[in-house]
Amino acid sequence: MKKLQQDAAKRADVDFSRLSDALAGTTRAVDAELDGILSAAEGPHARVLEAMRYATFAGGKRLRPFLVLTSSRLFGVDLANARRVAASLEVMHTYSLVHDDLPCMDNDDLRRGRPTTHIAFDEMTAVLAGDALLTLAFEILADEKTHASAEVRCRLIARLAEAAGRHGMIGGQMMDMLAPQRKLSGDEVVHLQQLKTGQLFEFACEAGAILGGAPEEDRARLRDYARDMGLIFQITDDLLDVTSSADKTGKSVGKDSAQGKATFVSIFGVSRAREEAKKLARRAAGTVAPYGNVAPELSELPLFLIDRES
Amino acid sequence: MKKLQQDAAKRADVDFSRLSDALAGTTRAVDAELDGILSAAEGPHARVLEAMRYATFAGGKRLRPFLVLTSSRLFGVDLANARRVAASLEVMHTYSLVHDDLPCMDNDDLRRGRPTTHIAFDEMTAVLAGDALLTLAFEILADEKTHASAEVRCRLIARLAEAAGRHGMIGGQMMDMLAPQRKLSGDEVVHLQQLKTGQLFEFACEAGAILGGAPEEDRARLRDYARDMGLIFQITDDLLDVTSSADKTGKSVGKDSAQGKATFVSIFGVSRAREEAKKLARRAAGTVAPYGNVAPELSELPLFLIDRES
Repeated sequence: MKKLQQDAAKRADVDFSRLSDALAGTTRAVDAELDGILSAAEGPHARVLEAMRYATFAGGKRLRPFLVLTSSRLFGVDLANARRVAASLEVMHTYSLVHDDLPCMDNDDLRRGRPTTHIAFDEMTAVLAGDALLTLAFEILADEKTHASAEVRCRLIARLAEAAGRHGMIGGQMMDMLAPQRKLSGDEVVHLQQLKTGQLFEFACEAGAILGGAPEEDRARLRDYARDMGLIFQITDDLLDVTSSADKTGKSVGKDSAQGKATFVSIFGVSRAREEAKKLARRAAGTVAPYGNVAPELSELPLFLIDRES
Repeated sequence: MKKLQQDAAKRADVDFSRLSDALAGTTRAVDAELDGILSAAEGPHARVLEAMRYATFAGGKRLRPFLVLTSSRLFGVDLANARRVAASLEVMHTYSLVHDDLPCMDNDDLRRGRPTTHIAFDEMTAVLAGDALLTLAFEILADEKTHASAEVRCRLIARLAEAAGRHGMIGGQMMDMLAPQRKLSGDEVVHLQQLKTGQLFEFACEAGAILGGAPEEDRARLRDYARDMGLIFQITDDLLDVTSSADKTGKSVGKDSAQGKATFVSIFGVSRAREEAKKLARRAAGTVAPYGNVAPELSELPLFLIDRES
């Protein structure tokens, strides 16, 4: 996270200082919220609580919470409500990382520069911590502290379950795991990533509209933006996997091709993938241009992401 | 399931035929509901959908759905609503079995006479299918088909998340996994099982009261009943593990002591465990005696469980 902010600050061509401040502010806000929700690790089951905290406070970039808080600001949502939804989404995202890193999935030992949860604890604890984080995401949303209206809370829960579920993120992860067994086309990789990464980005951007009761026009606009953002994020992730080092990214690199995975880079090559990310970033920035007065950071984020080093 | 009904029918000392019919009716109702919810396995992620169906339609006894439907009947709840909640709970229970059977947990190859999900598919698919079932449980509850009132739906979601989460079922599973490393007392085993098994039984019994807006007095009575039922179920499960065969139970037996787990039987011995189960069954039957006119099966179930052979 620090690295991301330093990256932002030092780039002279575009001034990302406002975005950098906003990202740092999100991290403080959502970490405080999560700290309150994830109770101290006490009792005979303390180990699973420790593992939940370990996985959650691992220096994540908090990009999804940032999108929740920013989309909420567009529609005048109470910050206390937005923070709860941001925490729920981050907890959902964290569970997916814990389970994806397991030996039977991506078998990753390193994430954000630290041992992954099943390395720091053990596999059984990592499975349970992931399950508990997934359950907690819904527990947070169902609580009236998240929004006074139960209708709104149910809408958030239904949307998050859809985004994270069998036809969303989990479906994408299944496709990703099966990919080495057959050659995916470019369209298939786009579809896979729209599920695996894109769906939670979509929820992040729509959450503010749901909390604020925004019209469908805004929801559709934010969904378009989120879809591009998910792809930009994934393409830049794939680029980092081949062009960067573990030292910079804080995770194992070069693993995708070693595992025979189909990525944007393996299909399109480095330079076309980079071009595609830039094209998407320009489009995404244009999509949210109408919100420029209230939340100019929304347009800056895609441009910032394509230059990221971690 | 068939075996359970046959067992019920052939026992001459008590007439369990009414209970047997009610259990069979529950299975038909909840299986039809689940069949409608778990869509056909299509698309590039079909494998995870297949695994979800495989785990769900495995001849489970549907005890928890039975308790949801029966507690709902007490308070005049619409059967369509009760069936949705029963399906949600069964899906939650199924995910917990899929993950508990994983090599890094109980490492079980056999359940209900069939290969466990990670054997029939593979570990990665089993982890994802479990995650997707857990997510689906909340998706079902959040849908307005489950109840017209979003308040009621949120109450169900909050209660299920609490029952299944880090301080509930998952906390109990964590304690169970850590048990071989230290000697548990009798009280600790009771506490562990109240979390691991008891919490979902509690939800099952309370669900009807939540759906029907029953007074706290009824909720408390049903919670008491559920707590005893959870223990009876677990004690008889532990007894079957030492006294029965894989042929009868449809799962591996003798594993608890092989894994050094603390169970009711390892702590109290067979005859005291059996006595304790009988004592609890009499108490549970008495607790729900006031509902005898509407739902006499509630009093019969504990007596029936202590004689079960699978």
